Amino acid sequence: MVNNLVQTTLLNCSLETKLIEAYHQKVNEIHRYLETTNDLTGWVEYPFQNHDNLLLEIENAANEIRTVADVLVVAGIGGSFLGARAIQDALTPYFGNAKNGIEVIYVGQNMSGAYINQLIDYIKDKEVYVNVISKSGGTMEPALAFRVMRQYMEERYGKESIERIIVTTDAEKGLLKKMADNSGYRQFVIPSDIGGRYSVLTPVGLLPIAVAGIDIRALMQGAKVAALEMQESDLEHNHAYQYAVTRHMLYEQGFKIELLASFEPSLNKFHEWWMQLFGESEGKQKKGLFPTCVNYSTDLHSIGQFIQDGSPILFETLLHFHEIEGDFSVPFDTRNEDGLNYLSNRTFNEINAISKQGTALAHADGGVPVIQLELPKLDAYHLGYLIYFFMKACAMSACLLEVNPFDQPGVEAYKRKMLELLQEEKVTT
Amino acid sequence: MVNNLVQTTLLNCSLETKLIEAYHQKVNEIHRYLETTNDLTGWVEYPFQNHDNLLLEIENAANEIRTVADVLVVAGIGGSFLGARAIQDALTPYFGNAKNGIEVIYVGQNMSGAYINQLIDYIKDKEVYVNVISKSGGTMEPALAFRVMRQYMEERYGKESIERIIVTTDAEKGLLKKMADNSGYRQFVIPSDIGGRYSVLTPVGLLPIAVAGIDIRALMQGAKVAALEMQESDLEHNHAYQYAVTRHMLYEQGFKIELLASFEPSLNKFHEWWMQLFGESEGKQKKGLFPTCVNYSTDLHSIGQFIQDGSPILFETLLHFHEIEGDFSVPFDTRNEDGLNYLSNRTFNEINAISKQGTALAHADGGVPVIQLELPKLDAYHLGYLIYFFMKACAMSACLLEVNPFDQPGVEAYKRKMLELLQEEKVTT
Repeated sequence: MVNNLVQTTLLNCSLETKLIEAYHQKVNEIHRYLETTNDLTGWVEYPFQNHDNLLLEIENAANEIRTVADVLVVAGIGGSFLGARAIQDALTPYFGNAKNGIEVIYVGQNMSGAYINQLIDYIKDKEVYVNVISKSGGTMEPALAFRVMRQYMEERYGKESIERIIVTTDAEKGLLKKMADNSGYRQFVIPSDIGGRYSVLTPVGLLPIAVAGIDIRALMQGAKVAALEMQESDLEHNHAYQYAVTRHMLYEQGFKIELLASFEPSLNKFHEWWMQLFGESEGKQKKGLFPTCVNYSTDLHSIGQFIQDGSPILFETLLHFHEIEGDFSVPFDTRNEDGLNYLSNRTFNEINAISKQGTALAHADGGVPVIQLELPKLDAYHLGYLIYFFMKACAMSACLLEVNPFDQPGVEAYKRKMLELLQEEKVTT
Repeated sequence: MVNNLVQTTLLNCSLETKLIEAYHQKVNEIHRYLETTNDLTGWVEYPFQNHDNLLLEIENAANEIRTVADVLVVAGIGGSFLGARAIQDALTPYFGNAKNGIEVIYVGQNMSGAYINQLIDYIKDKEVYVNVISKSGGTMEPALAFRVMRQYMEERYGKESIERIIVTTDAEKGLLKKMADNSGYRQFVIPSDIGGRYSVLTPVGLLPIAVAGIDIRALMQGAKVAALEMQESDLEHNHAYQYAVTRHMLYEQGFKIELLASFEPSLNKFHEWWMQLFGESEGKQKKGLFPTCVNYSTDLHSIGQFIQDGSPILFETLLHFHEIEGDFSVPFDTRNEDGLNYLSNRTFNEINAISKQGTALAHADGGVPVIQLELPKLDAYHLGYLIYFFMKACAMSACLLEVNPFDQPGVEAYKRKMLELLQEEKVTT
């Protein structure tokens, strides 16, 4: 049963038998807690449940949108935004629109007037659908964006706008649920026991991902395999827990920053999903590793200097996929003025993989602990697997820190301040 | 003379008279050093020099490219990449291509085979120019990308390829200079006394920026005004030095991370330019603040929790432009189901500005020191100003740390390791 699709290699840090023994019991206890508590752990069992009807419904909606629309505008922020965009970016082409000509554009994740102004202009000659995603409907940024998009759709499409707006929200509660019922919009449900940053494998992520042309069944299948493997409570056989314990150990040793690094630029947005998952789960009670990310080769010629030789406060987690679709051979050049003919029997992906090895060795030489996570292939199946791997590792890691992996009390602070300022102005104007 | 276009406000940290006195002499000494040394400080005086002929030549080349081509492919990495992309992203539209239909696409900043494979496919029906940027020509990533692009251009355009390839490199030395001379390519010069990360205001950045349709004279004018203001050696009147001393002071107090934050998503790539500037200048001899960046509102719903409430290891530098072109009014809705009608007399940019205030107050409340840098308007003039402001502040800051702001010995480490691995394979295959 235990295949461990993620292969873990450690450089400059170790998970010795002694340490495994020291953490063994605690990991076991937390494992049991995550399996039995009802505190927003719906995501743990979710991949085992039968979602056939739901997936069919999502695929039908996605096919309808892909047939009728040129653009799907998705309004959401945080966990209602980062996951879908991560998978979309990882698996759609670098240039131009997605394969079948439909664009998925996000809104409500920022408050830029220029952005929304230009968006409205950009879509004016295109057929549009809207998907608004919010558990409560009460978060200001996506709520304001949806207010704009809803009015736009009503003015442009009249009654047909009802068919073109799809709401992803709670089954029972909240402002957005009420609006959806009042207007008769199609609805997808966010399970009430799954928090935002653990929700990418629910309709929150699945609808935009399916519209982007990605195989959501492969994604779910990968997650299911991961969920099966990670039912293993034993630290020695559970790679997600090994990752969690290793990073926790490095934190205890005084490292302040975990740097997630990839060599494929399409993973940049996946990094941002990971940052929210770990930062929001662990960054509380004045604790936690600061999660940040880099993309190589770009950042080897930027922050690379700091990693190699600056303040010794960080460790690196190198994420690598062995197989990536699409490659290019280095051409032979009779002139050989650049002296690179010795690489002309190579492809870029091969050289990139060697650059990854070189980087790991150089950084380890520089005293930076390196965790290598390797997967066979960059595709929906393995990303589904990796998402679940990271969620399980993150919950374990936060529990090792003795903080709640599922709340985010600090996010409320700026909301309150902003509301105070806006309300003050409301009184004075 | 001293206008200080950048307004600095400090929350939760201070630059008291006592401290100003303590740093006064040191800042003065470093100022004199930067004005007189010949060690890669060509950028200090550069904005004062007369560049009229150069700017005209760049504008002519840019106009030619904008007339003939659909795509300019720019091959470069690090300082030969991040600056141009930063300004381009900050000042061109969010959706679709730049205003006049020309795309500037970068290559050689990564080694992804998928990326280059798709790029070659993407440009096949488009008219193409190439600009390769490298001081030496010896950096492997852009050298390999240029090898591909050069062969592509020769196969596609034959002898005309000579007109369509523009080389930005050293005036005398290096592989790329030799290749340009051999083939008769048009050349722009990288001044030999200006290092990569300080070079965006030279042809390195200016040609791609001009091709993207941005007013490079306004950019240079802004830089000149900044250079004039920052000739002031006195800490009390030099805002760049105040920023440098403040962040140095916070570093001395034990803060490990500086987080550059903006509320306009078009500034994401500008953040990355800033990260290279500071990370590569300061991160050596096991010293330096780790520079990283966030974009709000997005990241308030992600890493925001950590900033507010996680490990107290960071301070925040909030970058804010008062005026941004393009805005959108919150519409009034008779139904008011979302309860947001009280904002319907507001625009998004106004609410965004209030969100910035709320964030600064909330983070300061959470114990995070906040440096606010405010500029009148997001345009070429003020970005030119800000670029120079940050370069001067960075050089001062690195000198306060007693490291060389202009070298990057740590970048060589991974290059050596990679080369070793590639050469080994060369022997064995």
